[in-house]
Amino acid sequence: MDPMRIDVISVIPGFFDSALHNGLLSIARKKEYVEIHVHNLHDYGLGRYRQVDDTPFGGGAGMVLRPEPVFSCIEALTGEREYDAVIFPTPDGKPFEQALANRFSRMKNLIILCGHYKALDERVRQTLVTMELSVGDVVVSGGEIPALLIMDAVVRLIPGVLGDSESALTDSFQTGMLDSVYYTRPSEFRGMKVPDVLLSGNHRNIEQWRYDNALQRTTRRRPDLLDMKSFED
Amino acid sequence: MDPMRIDVISVIPGFFDSALHNGLLSIARKKEYVEIHVHNLHDYGLGRYRQVDDTPFGGGAGMVLRPEPVFSCIEALTGEREYDAVIFPTPDGKPFEQALANRFSRMKNLIILCGHYKALDERVRQTLVTMELSVGDVVVSGGEIPALLIMDAVVRLIPGVLGDSESALTDSFQTGMLDSVYYTRPSEFRGMKVPDVLLSGNHRNIEQWRYDNALQRTTRRRPDLLDMKSFED
Repeated sequence: MDPMRIDVISVIPGFFDSALHNGLLSIARKKEYVEIHVHNLHDYGLGRYRQVDDTPFGGGAGMVLRPEPVFSCIEALTGEREYDAVIFPTPDGKPFEQALANRFSRMKNLIILCGHYKALDERVRQTLVTMELSVGDVVVSGGEIPALLIMDAVVRLIPGVLGDSESALTDSFQTGMLDSVYYTRPSEFRGMKVPDVLLSGNHRNIEQWRYDNALQRTTRRRPDLLDMKSFED
Repeated sequence: MDPMRIDVISVIPGFFDSALHNGLLSIARKKEYVEIHVHNLHDYGLGRYRQVDDTPFGGGAGMVLRPEPVFSCIEALTGEREYDAVIFPTPDGKPFEQALANRFSRMKNLIILCGHYKALDERVRQTLVTMELSVGDVVVSGGEIPALLIMDAVVRLIPGVLGDSESALTDSFQTGMLDSVYYTRPSEFRGMKVPDVLLSGNHRNIEQWRYDNALQRTTRRRPDLLDMKSFED
């Protein structure tokens, strides 16, 4: 199968270097499950200084990304191939959740447009962006970190990327609940012991304990999850 | 004032290099508003192979971070200075929101412990971690990207880090609403025009338009925000 292709557009493309060479995205790229191309928006900037932003109409602090460079860059990409989505990470977007990560993991070509500075001209959002996604009710300096979050969450779900696919299936949210807690060696550390049942070797009891633990934790920490019909899209 | 100090613990410390040298965190470090120290958990690993993880008691896929290396690393840090918080990013944590970012931005010393693999031994979570934070109902491969998100959101709120502090004050969530939309030059692009009021120069009308636009967007996209008394902590 062809690798998924992700095109990331950013004013600080160097931000992504280490993330593409360490950890999950690096592994998935090497195994050819995904190709990630980072584009420098300044390459599509205006004039001698490759300008990409300007002051907001109506005044106020901060700079706004102009439409022309973003249109030029995205049209260069969409002229080459078809894209399933043009994602714009933004705090006023739709919450990015596991069901969306599942859905994206089955797509072929994605663009992630990283905002920076104060805002992105609204005309770009209205016309080019197909999905605005939020990674929490918090503001960060640009779309670069949210783009990493989206890519990691999506790419790890591509079948084959994780060494042991069962590991992703028992993740929090995939089951509609938070995951249970885990323990590893040593069985006693500074007087703190691992629950006996986990050392018992009785798999039926262990499964029951994990289910009870996950349900109890979800009830206490995230009762809202239990009100939902399903987490799947 | 002394810079804020953030100690990040990770099994893939190289992941952070580019993020510390591009964008907001790079600027804030150069201006000495923040010091970020990334520690390799393997330096505290066990035995000749610097082991940091092991299989989960009770069986199942994935690896679990052992308690000893994490205790060694965190105790080496807390032996040197006092920390305001030991943050563990995890999908079953408390949602990381703007009010928390505001609160953290006034702290002095923070530890962020990045999980990796399947899980972190529960005994570490019970004893060393003071705050478990989630960056959305989605699972990623480790705590590294959430750590970046938390650092960026917090550091940009340290007074002086952003060139123009007004820019952070009108962000989404700081006002209890989403932000309004923004436009910049050109005033007409491919037939799409900037709303007249923003070109009018009438500041009272512009403020009113922005307030109306923000309220309308919040009502449509995030009515839940309007039910809350306040977003401030």
